[in-house]
Amino acid sequence: MIDLYTAATPNGFKISIMLEELGLEYKVHAIDLSSNWQKSPDFTKINPNGRIPAIVDRGADDLTIFESGAIMIYLAEKTGKLMPQDIRGRMDVLQWVMFQMGGVGPMQGQAHVFYRYFPEKIQPAIDRYQKETKRLYTVLDTQLKGRDYLAGGESGVYSIADIANWTWVRSHDWAGVEIDDLPDLSAWVARIAERPAAQKGIQIPPPLDGGKTAEAGRKMIVT
Amino acid sequence: MIDLYTAATPNGFKISIMLEELGLEYKVHAIDLSSNWQKSPDFTKINPNGRIPAIVDRGADDLTIFESGAIMIYLAEKTGKLMPQDIRGRMDVLQWVMFQMGGVGPMQGQAHVFYRYFPEKIQPAIDRYQKETKRLYTVLDTQLKGRDYLAGGESGVYSIADIANWTWVRSHDWAGVEIDDLPDLSAWVARIAERPAAQKGIQIPPPLDGGKTAEAGRKMIVT
Repeated sequence: MIDLYTAATPNGFKISIMLEELGLEYKVHAIDLSSNWQKSPDFTKINPNGRIPAIVDRGADDLTIFESGAIMIYLAEKTGKLMPQDIRGRMDVLQWVMFQMGGVGPMQGQAHVFYRYFPEKIQPAIDRYQKETKRLYTVLDTQLKGRDYLAGGESGVYSIADIANWTWVRSHDWAGVEIDDLPDLSAWVARIAERPAAQKGIQIPPPLDGGKTAEAGRKMIVT
Repeated sequence: MIDLYTAATPNGFKISIMLEELGLEYKVHAIDLSSNWQKSPDFTKINPNGRIPAIVDRGADDLTIFESGAIMIYLAEKTGKLMPQDIRGRMDVLQWVMFQMGGVGPMQGQAHVFYRYFPEKIQPAIDRYQKETKRLYTVLDTQLKGRDYLAGGESGVYSIADIANWTWVRSHDWAGVEIDDLPDLSAWVARIAERPAAQKGIQIPPPLDGGKTAEAGRKMIVT
């Protein structure tokens, strides 16, 4: 049994999708981020950075892991799935996971912030992050030419590299960045969207409706 | 023999420091980033993202790897050094590497951009990234209380988690963020600065003086 501390965000969905793909038993602890419970000592003992996702593997002496990229590597190694075993395939996957961790995630995340949330409209910042997000998408589109998946050999194998990047790219509208002119990326987004585990994973946890409705006041919901 | 494509940046220094620590033989290909050679087809066949660092391991069937985080994992696994072998120590190191890849690096990088380089002075953006960088530094400072190194057991063992974070934190002045009020982080910065491999690694490659002096016109320098 794995305890998953998560919320309905791209980084959270990486782990719920992966757990669904792997068929592992897990318990969802849905955190209402608007409550800031993730910054409380109850949670920072699990992740000192106060961010989701994090896991505790009850079947592995309560091993605790934070950072979605580290959790994905752990689960892939634990099961021997979603990452090739040979060194070349494995490193290919890891470099595209890192591309997402250090590139697509943070840059698209800043586009979300300045395009959607920031109290002031700062056009140069919006432009900067939309442009960089589009550039990174273009790198993915080029990589996907003649391939079904990002990494792991000639035509690619479905891996944590795909899951990590997909949870972000599928939300391109939220960043105000179009992908209609990137046909291979668009086809890959649609290809992964057909997977039952991806469909289920993006519903875990269900949206809290901003934490303002029936769930308001509940800082963590275990389902 | 490992070919290292790099430049005098925090992400580049991660790999030169690590190669020095490991005592591996390597050839430096110093890229003048101002020439944009890293965006040319000669280099994007190595890293389609057009960024440094990247390596080609001539002793491993010309295996090519980009993204500093992936290269660090590769070199640690290749040598069995700078990362614990047990699952708990290994995952501890990986989560703090990811903390740097997805947090300290991108956020401090944005502080560098808006504080130093951006054509306009946009105070809300400067404030946002300096504040987030300081918050991340504070997480590191808390983690380092009673420990010599970030990860890998009770008092910590020197690992790729330290190298990854150190090359960024040591440049805190460049981001306009002070660390005088973070005593454990400051002591850790000084502790690693004493290591001969760290001292040597941050001189590889030597600064190109903005690519504007004697090296101007040379897009790549092999030393």
